[in-house]
Amino acid sequence: MQVFSSGSATLAPEFGVLSGRWAQYAESGRLPELPFDAMWVVVPPGGRTNEDCHPELELSVVVEGSGTFESPNGRTEASAGTTVLMDSAERHVIHNNSAESRLVILSIYWMPVSVPEAADAK
Amino acid sequence: MQVFSSGSATLAPEFGVLSGRWAQYAESGRLPELPFDAMWVVVPPGGRTNEDCHPELELSVVVEGSGTFESPNGRTEASAGTTVLMDSAERHVIHNNSAESRLVILSIYWMPVSVPEAADAK
Repeated sequence: MQVFSSGSATLAPEFGVLSGRWAQYAESGRLPELPFDAMWVVVPPGGRTNEDCHPELELSVVVEGSGTFESPNGRTEASAGTTVLMDSAERHVIHNNSAESRLVILSIYWMPVSVPEAADAK
Repeated sequence: MQVFSSGSATLAPEFGVLSGRWAQYAESGRLPELPFDAMWVVVPPGGRTNEDCHPELELSVVVEGSGTFESPNGRTEASAGTTVLMDSAERHVIHNNSAESRLVILSIYWMPVSVPEAADAK
């Protein structure tokens, strides 16, 4: 049993907000090999992330506060207990509309699963 | 962009509590292939899960309330914003000690990554 908490993670400025990459747990030898990468994302009151776009799919699990997730496909509000899945190469920005509360997200991301047919064709 | 929320998931009795397996999203054609399985776990006030033990590693992301995670390796308190990782075949029980608030977890689980040397030996 191992515990990884947003409250005790080392955070650094990234994406216009603060992020705590889970690589920090691997460096301490505590993390087994995972089938995904992960990081904490902390958006301060009134803050927003920079626009981000990458080939990995990304599942944002809201664990504290609430925010607005925006992509070319729409906008949605999400509070603790809700997850938002961004598709590969889907541009996105996350806004914290609260003036008092921070928004904390566990972001889980992975490369798209390879297509078996393509592999067979090689 | 797709939204999956504990508040709107279909839950069913399982493990002595209520669970909402993410297979329900796949059935509606909304879920891409993920490198893990997932389910919502809702532990009512004063409740606890049955003891569980399985080969999959399991990352519990607490998204609402707080609880006590117990395994042969120890006990830990975890509240929203904290994750608890159970190793493969690590027996565990989750307790909700609150008399008023429910405990909601996003449970993410996957089989241990195969050992390349073993695969090569076949």
